[in-house]
Amino acid sequence: MALGRRLLAEALGTAALLATVVGSGIMGMTLSGGDAGLALLANAAATAAILYVLITVLGPLSGAHFNPVVTLAMRLRGALTTREALAYVGVQVLAAVAGVLLAHAMFEQPLLQPGTHVRSGAGQWLSEAVATCGLLLTILLGLRQRPAAIPLLVAGYIFAAYWFTASTSFANPAVTLARALTQTFAGIRPADTGGFVLAQLAGMLLALGLERGLAVASAAPAATSSPSRTT
Amino acid sequence: MALGRRLLAEALGTAALLATVVGSGIMGMTLSGGDAGLALLANAAATAAILYVLITVLGPLSGAHFNPVVTLAMRLRGALTTREALAYVGVQVLAAVAGVLLAHAMFEQPLLQPGTHVRSGAGQWLSEAVATCGLLLTILLGLRQRPAAIPLLVAGYIFAAYWFTASTSFANPAVTLARALTQTFAGIRPADTGGFVLAQLAGMLLALGLERGLAVASAAPAATSSPSRTT
Amino acid sequence: MALGRRLLAEALGTAALLATVVGSGIMGMTLSGGDAGLALLANAAATAAILYVLITVLGPLSGAHFNPVVTLAMRLRGALTTREALAYVGVQVLAAVAGVLLAHAMFEQPLLQPGTHVRSGAGQWLSEAVATCGLLLTILLGLRQRPAAIPLLVAGYIFAAYWFTASTSFANPAVTLARALTQTFAGIRPADTGGFVLAQLAGMLLALGLERGLAVASAAPAATSSPSRTT
Amino acid sequence: MALGRRLLAEALGTAALLATVVGSGIMGMTLSGGDAGLALLANAAATAAILYVLITVLGPLSGAHFNPVVTLAMRLRGALTTREALAYVGVQVLAAVAGVLLAHAMFEQPLLQPGTHVRSGAGQWLSEAVATCGLLLTILLGLRQRPAAIPLLVAGYIFAAYWFTASTSFANPAVTLARALTQTFAGIRPADTGGFVLAQLAGMLLALGLERGLAVASAAPAATSSPSRTT
Repeated sequence: MALGRRLLAEALGTAALLATVVGSGIMGMTLSGGDAGLALLANAAATAAILYVLITVLGPLSGAHFNPVVTLAMRLRGALTTREALAYVGVQVLAAVAGVLLAHAMFEQPLLQPGTHVRSGAGQWLSEAVATCGLLLTILLGLRQRPAAIPLLVAGYIFAAYWFTASTSFANPAVTLARALTQTFAGIRPADTGGFVLAQLAGMLLALGLERGLAVASAAPAATSSPSRTT
Repeated sequence: MALGRRLLAEALGTAALLATVVGSGIMGMTLSGGDAGLALLANAAATAAILYVLITVLGPLSGAHFNPVVTLAMRLRGALTTREALAYVGVQVLAAVAGVLLAHAMFEQPLLQPGTHVRSGAGQWLSEAVATCGLLLTILLGLRQRPAAIPLLVAGYIFAAYWFTASTSFANPAVTLARALTQTFAGIRPADTGGFVLAQLAGMLLALGLERGLAVASAAPAATSSPSRTT
Repeated sequence: MALGRRLLAEALGTAALLATVVGSGIMGMTLSGGDAGLALLANAAATAAILYVLITVLGPLSGAHFNPVVTLAMRLRGALTTREALAYVGVQVLAAVAGVLLAHAMFEQPLLQPGTHVRSGAGQWLSEAVATCGLLLTILLGLRQRPAAIPLLVAGYIFAAYWFTASTSFANPAVTLARALTQTFAGIRPADTGGFVLAQLAGMLLALGLERGLAVASAAPAATSSPSRTT
Repeated sequence: MALGRRLLAEALGTAALLATVVGSGIMGMTLSGGDAGLALLANAAATAAILYVLITVLGPLSGAHFNPVVTLAMRLRGALTTREALAYVGVQVLAAVAGVLLAHAMFEQPLLQPGTHVRSGAGQWLSEAVATCGLLLTILLGLRQRPAAIPLLVAGYIFAAYWFTASTSFANPAVTLARALTQTFAGIRPADTGGFVLAQLAGMLLALGLERGLAVASAAPAATSSPSRTT
């Protein structure tokens, strides 16, 4: 498939993802009068729903990475060339920023708002490493065990990770950078993005190691849940 | 299939959709004592659930448009004749109104209540254009990539769009007109419907353009999420 | 399959359904300190989830009716004998009562509590007729269009109907009678059960009429959402 | 498959499950300012989502038990040897503890916090027996009727059981022991774990009996919801 079309798919998907993350955060906080619990519920459910849609309809076009660490992992496995991977990452970052601006425009907010939400410290970094490791394992094992379920697997994983990590699971460097441009619910202070991205890269490496530990001459995909016996 | 039966399917589906949108809004606001965040959560989840059901069971009968911009897009692709498209749109508008009246009757509200909810301005119009563009892309790309998933794709998209747009995503001219007949949670001021419908048409045209940009000699549908390599 | 085993499946499923309806209502109200909006959200989501499970695992054993109006509709279509249908209905009512008692026992409530929740009037009866009509249409059309999706269709429909009807959609005479034995969130006053059951029967008859109106030489089930053209 | 790899899969899955149960409870309570209703909603939804993911991607590797009573039931059916079952249970308990510590570390809580949440009495024990019986029946019948749906069936069941039981459905001895190490939302007093585990074992035995009562020369799995006629 022509690279231009693949990049258009990555751009549309990443922008839609960020517009959803930021927009649903604004809507959740506004409607609930500042109830952050309800806002995160709306935020997590909307993000999961749009991920299911975007990965289903754009996956066949570009692989639906929307995330530099996914692209990097796929590059390490030889699924793209270095040039393609660099183009993917560039487009992901620009489209993520565009998605944040779009959300601001829809909600009639100032377009550019350097983030002020402090997200730093060991708990936050551990959270991002865990979140990214889990996301990569979900994708890598899912591709091996049940590829048609990838859209629902990623949606389900991200919904859970919004809640079980202390950082609400950014797990994506392009998302992290773009969210430094908003002061709304989903924002992050620009100074805190470096730590997040490093933690995400560490999580990716951990996932590659764990996946190797789990690597097997893959069993029949139909026998998904029956225990296999070894004697 | 006889046109009369197809129109009956469109009528049932559109009326059920509007009864759900309006009814769940009333129930959500009433039970939560006016917590609009919880009401939108109930509203969005109930709408997504009924869309999944209606598109699954009525799709094989009428295509399950329930929406004049979907019918118009299908007409532009030659999937219906002009006469059929006009009949569809007429039935959709009448059935949408009937659905609102049914919700009012179930909740023992005055049947006719000209809407008072102000929904106007650039942010709202941008929201409706974005919402409708996304809905059309979900349907057009979904039909190409994984037609059996269309009910879940539309449900997932609309759930997310309720939250990520500032207008809560009407994305449907028949829904817009009918919601001008209620003063409850889901209502809209009659004077504001024109801007919404124009924005929805603009969003539809944008979707058709983007879909052309993404058009490809479609890949194998089974390889939904594996990145395809081009060297 | 032996009738005894089928009745055991109906009994387990109906009891589990009622334990979920009543138990999740108690838990929702208790934990949220009486926020009926959150309680209905928990109630609706838990009921939908257990319906998906029960219909999937018990459907192949008994048909997973759990509901006298479903059994009656199946009897009218000749899917069971009169004797079998009577046995089904008797078991459903007894198991529904057992499910309510089980919920009371788990939450250490008095086992028998004649309901006090007033649910009466034209809006409530219209709601029950609409709710039951929709449930039957979901099942009848679903069996024709996509039988494997019946568990998710019924779950999705009931979730939506909890919110879009003023009665929270009992749509089941056995459920109605059993819920007259609790004073908790899901209860109903015994004097109000007659109106509910009559409305449910009316809704069932309406569904049979509408389904006949929609009856067609069924199209290919794979083409679920593509509009079919008639010229 | 080599036992070491199977145990690694069990360890990863069980640790991720506990990190989700405990982490999402902390996040839910913190963000909502102590609204236990919203916290349980987040807790239940996050747990269900991660169960769907973990069972899908790890099921083919280890069977995805994550639960000593599931392993015991599988041992009774001859699906593993006694040695394997003991290794599974040991790994499950250790990994469950690790998952709790990981959640504490992410949220910068003291790593070890002996539980203080009192969960005792007949209602709680009955709840655990019912919850575990239902979980086992879901798995045993699901494996027979629709094995590919096991991940969604277990997720749906656990979501419902969080709400319909008075104990919020631990239904797992490894989970019970590990949750005795936290004072957060999901915790349990160490002294109360014995009663829970005994009730869970009783529930497992009841499930095995009920499943035998329902045992049949299994019908065609495709006919999932159509009532079968016997005359």
